[in-house]
Amino acid sequence: MPKTTKTRVLTGITTTGTPHLGNYVGAIKPAIEASQDPNVQSFYFLADYHALIKCQEPKRVQESRLEIAATWLALGLDTDNAIFYRQSDILEIPELTWMLSCVCAKGLMNRAHAYKAAVAENEDAGNQDPDKGITMGLFGYPVLMAADILMFNANKVPVGRDQIQHIEMARDIAGRFNHLYKGQYFTLPEAVVDEKVEVLGGLDGRKMSKSYNNTIPLFVSEKKLQKLVRKIKTNSLEPGEPKDPDSCTLFQIYSAFATAEETAAMRSEYKNGIGWGVAKDHVFEYLNEHLREPRERYNALMEDPGHIEAVLRKGAERARAEANSTMERLREAVGLGRFV
Amino acid sequence: MPKTTKTRVLTGITTTGTPHLGNYVGAIKPAIEASQDPNVQSFYFLADYHALIKCQEPKRVQESRLEIAATWLALGLDTDNAIFYRQSDILEIPELTWMLSCVCAKGLMNRAHAYKAAVAENEDAGNQDPDKGITMGLFGYPVLMAADILMFNANKVPVGRDQIQHIEMARDIAGRFNHLYKGQYFTLPEAVVDEKVEVLGGLDGRKMSKSYNNTIPLFVSEKKLQKLVRKIKTNSLEPGEPKDPDSCTLFQIYSAFATAEETAAMRSEYKNGIGWGVAKDHVFEYLNEHLREPRERYNALMEDPGHIEAVLRKGAERARAEANSTMERLREAVGLGRFV
Repeated sequence: MPKTTKTRVLTGITTTGTPHLGNYVGAIKPAIEASQDPNVQSFYFLADYHALIKCQEPKRVQESRLEIAATWLALGLDTDNAIFYRQSDILEIPELTWMLSCVCAKGLMNRAHAYKAAVAENEDAGNQDPDKGITMGLFGYPVLMAADILMFNANKVPVGRDQIQHIEMARDIAGRFNHLYKGQYFTLPEAVVDEKVEVLGGLDGRKMSKSYNNTIPLFVSEKKLQKLVRKIKTNSLEPGEPKDPDSCTLFQIYSAFATAEETAAMRSEYKNGIGWGVAKDHVFEYLNEHLREPRERYNALMEDPGHIEAVLRKGAERARAEANSTMERLREAVGLGRFV
Repeated sequence: MPKTTKTRVLTGITTTGTPHLGNYVGAIKPAIEASQDPNVQSFYFLADYHALIKCQEPKRVQESRLEIAATWLALGLDTDNAIFYRQSDILEIPELTWMLSCVCAKGLMNRAHAYKAAVAENEDAGNQDPDKGITMGLFGYPVLMAADILMFNANKVPVGRDQIQHIEMARDIAGRFNHLYKGQYFTLPEAVVDEKVEVLGGLDGRKMSKSYNNTIPLFVSEKKLQKLVRKIKTNSLEPGEPKDPDSCTLFQIYSAFATAEETAAMRSEYKNGIGWGVAKDHVFEYLNEHLREPRERYNALMEDPGHIEAVLRKGAERARAEANSTMERLREAVGLGRFV
């Protein structure tokens, strides 16, 4: 694959959960839209090596990978344009991780937020060993992230605030490698923090998140979707009493999907005292209508894992073509070239 | 490659130095002999990923890899029998390293001798940061070693005393993986410590070692070999005065190569007061005679790196065939299997 002058944007999706409405609104939808920009070369990958850090249930990891791949494809990711692959298909990534480990100061990892939080938790719990329960995977994963990013010379990496440090670490490691081996081997990546990222509320009103167990999965049956929408926490105002849309999770979820006009109309309904039951039915119908087609595609894809496999392998081929030539160059750089 | 019931013995050779007489006597010769045992399947590999931890001079790493490969081949390693490969040709090894990292307690690495020694050095030097100058490669390499060993289900790993801990760590990590993923995925390796390993003295009488800069490389020109043998430190006894063979590096080097009879004869010469000049000439002639043929083969090999490349690739193919099927199984075990 010839190098292009397009801006390279790279996004990894950790494969431990089932995609939910919050993921769609906050991450998947904007990513799929961004990938249609002709000035951008997008890389999306199932971060399944990362999944092993936190999840040692093989079935969960395996299912999540399939669900996430099916979700992105069902929602219209253009895999001719974006490069969509499974991290674990690119053996060059752990190889690069090792190379980077050899130039990465241990002190840098000592200062990683996730590691420090785990140590603090141990200390708070009165554990004698501050490293109790911490694996080398948890300790060293910022190096794997650096390899994910540097392998493809990504220019931009969209992240949440809590991930900025990882991108700084990747820059640090890249700079150190460039310096030690006297060359411009790596592009220094930039974190792109979208302050406007929509954070959707969950069933209980807190941020929708797997860890709160309050999610509405993107693709469930109509019946299940209706049941879940009905479970969204609302207050005890009766029909006829005016309601505040801006503090209401139900309204927030609706407006994340609805057009500006539809949202404005619902806002009026709230002021006019729409009853919760009616409002919930309306939101359910709306979501159901909008999710029907992708859900059908999703269900069909989930029935045909062989097809998903083929799509991902094609993506892996494209990614590996690039990873291969990058690694060829890096192996020469560090003294691991072929003998000729 | 079908699994055999042969005992699997695995040896890695770190590729940062030029093989010298001490390496030959202490490691290469016994390893090549051991590989001829029909009950043994030997794995020898150029540990070039490990080389990156300590050596960031690409030229040195590259040369050392070539020299070590040429040396083992020149000395008659039977590569139809033994599996002889370059670690960096087996991308599955860093992949397995990552998988093992996710089950390996960080605390285990905190207790590794090499890391603790580096920290102690920093503390002695009054450095505020105990991790100063320590890379993630140095900190985590026992996990890479575990992957080297567990990938091929090695039964025995010949090591020096200082390496026993690494084998224990590999067992520990293997046991943890087997437990977490509920299967007998890995054989627990055993360290084999040969107490009789001959440690050869160097030019200055201390152990012959690259780090003391006192080595006699195995394959140098006749002239250079003569010059080096003449530099071996002896005492100031005159010709005619009886000499003690047992405290003499020159005698030790000679006897490491000579037969029992030849050694006994030289012992008499020492008692009879052989002069140092005569003794050194004799030892030089003897070594030169014994190294002539392998040196010719070595020089021819060094002139033909393409041939060495081909031999190593053949070894890598055999190793990868096995690594591949091992990894296929492990990927399934952790939830990274194919979609079918």
